[in-house]
Amino acid sequence: MKTKKLINAGENAVDEMLEGILSAHPDHLYAVDGMPRAIVARHGPRQGKVGLVIGGGSGHEPSFLGFVGKGLADAAAVGNVFASPPPDPIIACATAVNGGAGVLFLYGNYAGDVMNFDMAAEMLAMDDLEVRTVLSTDDVASAPADQREKRRGVAGNVFIFKAAGAACDLMYSLDEVERVARFANERTYTMGVALSPCSLPQTLKPNFAIGESEMEIGMGIHGEPGVARGELAPADAVTDTLLDKILEEMKASAGDRVAVLINSLGSTPLMELYIMMRRVKQRLDQMGLVIHTSLVGNYCTSLEMAGASITLMHLDHELQRLIDHPCDCAMFRVG
Amino acid sequence: MKTKKLINAGENAVDEMLEGILSAHPDHLYAVDGMPRAIVARHGPRQGKVGLVIGGGSGHEPSFLGFVGKGLADAAAVGNVFASPPPDPIIACATAVNGGAGVLFLYGNYAGDVMNFDMAAEMLAMDDLEVRTVLSTDDVASAPADQREKRRGVAGNVFIFKAAGAACDLMYSLDEVERVARFANERTYTMGVALSPCSLPQTLKPNFAIGESEMEIGMGIHGEPGVARGELAPADAVTDTLLDKILEEMKASAGDRVAVLINSLGSTPLMELYIMMRRVKQRLDQMGLVIHTSLVGNYCTSLEMAGASITLMHLDHELQRLIDHPCDCAMFRVG
Repeated sequence: MKTKKLINAGENAVDEMLEGILSAHPDHLYAVDGMPRAIVARHGPRQGKVGLVIGGGSGHEPSFLGFVGKGLADAAAVGNVFASPPPDPIIACATAVNGGAGVLFLYGNYAGDVMNFDMAAEMLAMDDLEVRTVLSTDDVASAPADQREKRRGVAGNVFIFKAAGAACDLMYSLDEVERVARFANERTYTMGVALSPCSLPQTLKPNFAIGESEMEIGMGIHGEPGVARGELAPADAVTDTLLDKILEEMKASAGDRVAVLINSLGSTPLMELYIMMRRVKQRLDQMGLVIHTSLVGNYCTSLEMAGASITLMHLDHELQRLIDHPCDCAMFRVG
Repeated sequence: MKTKKLINAGENAVDEMLEGILSAHPDHLYAVDGMPRAIVARHGPRQGKVGLVIGGGSGHEPSFLGFVGKGLADAAAVGNVFASPPPDPIIACATAVNGGAGVLFLYGNYAGDVMNFDMAAEMLAMDDLEVRTVLSTDDVASAPADQREKRRGVAGNVFIFKAAGAACDLMYSLDEVERVARFANERTYTMGVALSPCSLPQTLKPNFAIGESEMEIGMGIHGEPGVARGELAPADAVTDTLLDKILEEMKASAGDRVAVLINSLGSTPLMELYIMMRRVKQRLDQMGLVIHTSLVGNYCTSLEMAGASITLMHLDHELQRLIDHPCDCAMFRVG
């Protein structure tokens, strides 16, 4: 059975999507001349500011280009569905946002992305553009705590990008922006659950198989295997399972503040996300933790996958300020 | 086969969702004491301002309570999934937002909603609270053009609510707010296409059947029968089919401005919506119509239904101003 999609030719889906995005958001975004996969913020980059370049595969919308805008990322390099962008659009992004203060590459830890962003950084270094790299590794299920550097980056990107983007907007130095990005990543924890697969535009076939009444805890946003498959449990029990893993690592104390993200993997509706949010609030209340801000909706999707993820960012005063800092992106605004 | 949902007991889904929404958005929303289905804007209602009350069944999130906030609706009455709210929460909403200048009830034209909102209006009239009612009827497929008053209200609500809410915020009189709401409705046209059913939390069973490669043009947001069922066509052809019906009625001239909404019915991802947006832009460009603003995403959903709708609002100077007027809701912001 093939999945039905409102697309034209599958191989054109990403480029046609980008055309649509630029049609809808001309005041926020433009593509570098001759490089339609390099999407830049109209009002972000400026002289003396560190440029923040994010990116990754398509199919996770509004990640990543929905977070390009004043106060957040300056540009996003766009890959094919679930595939890293090649070096060219990454280089074009870095060049477009270069304000003379260096550029930070900030993206999820996936082998393909690391290879291409690193290649781009090497080529930019030859042109004397200083690039630093921070990888997001917020997906708790993807490797043990003592191997955090092996973890993947998932929905927690939103908070990590937000903190780094605010630091750039506040004219922090490249050293400081890099420090903030690393710290934001260290303090961000995501656990997801998948209920159904998605299918790629080129194949229209499910990217994995799962039983009619099963869920998979910890599955990655491209269908990477999770840590446990079992019968679907009630929302409160699922939420507890995800939250327990996060809280075990986060080591928060009563009175600490957190930012919460309840993210849909695509087809899970707001009703279910808010039912999970209710349980998160109950649990955090019990521990005396304060929800400083919360986001609920589609932030890092896997096309039409069913499932959700919970992210907590463990705030301190600095992160709190950076998370509250205004931003104005086509698909996300604060302040 | 049952649909998998991240819920607890199905009969508690709506109330648990509301708890989650209030947990996530305490600065924007509160429930009337003892009336958890009456959700009011913290910063909307005020003395001398017409109160705007919207509402309807659950399962369409972010409709309707996502559009409650300063500059938009003052309160929303919340029903069960795909079912009208009873009079009590409607009365509670009206009472909570009453600033002495009257109240407008503005909601989609469905028999159950009409019955309950009318009953509430009658009871409020006995307490000397003046209530006017405007029904939204933007769903082009649901009745012929010469019986517009029989049409249902769907995603175009977003623009109609927006215009009326701005008029209230600008302290228009009840007469003027009613006029604006009627005019906004007259100028708003929606056409949808459904690819897959959704299922209700209580039953977990699909609400209609559709073939593996079929689409249905004009299906309603509760699965009401549409105007044509056929093989799924490429996105551009589907977009043309929807747009042709809208443009045939809209009678716009070159240079006219429109507001565009490309809305997901739930599980259709942003990639597909933006591919449709691309085609809308091409077609409107050909006609010399100007896209004044565009919204793309989940605005009026049917739980996890697959499919999308296109809405055009045919702007004039007044509607343009009202659509641009700032609003600050938990799930929607402008300005």
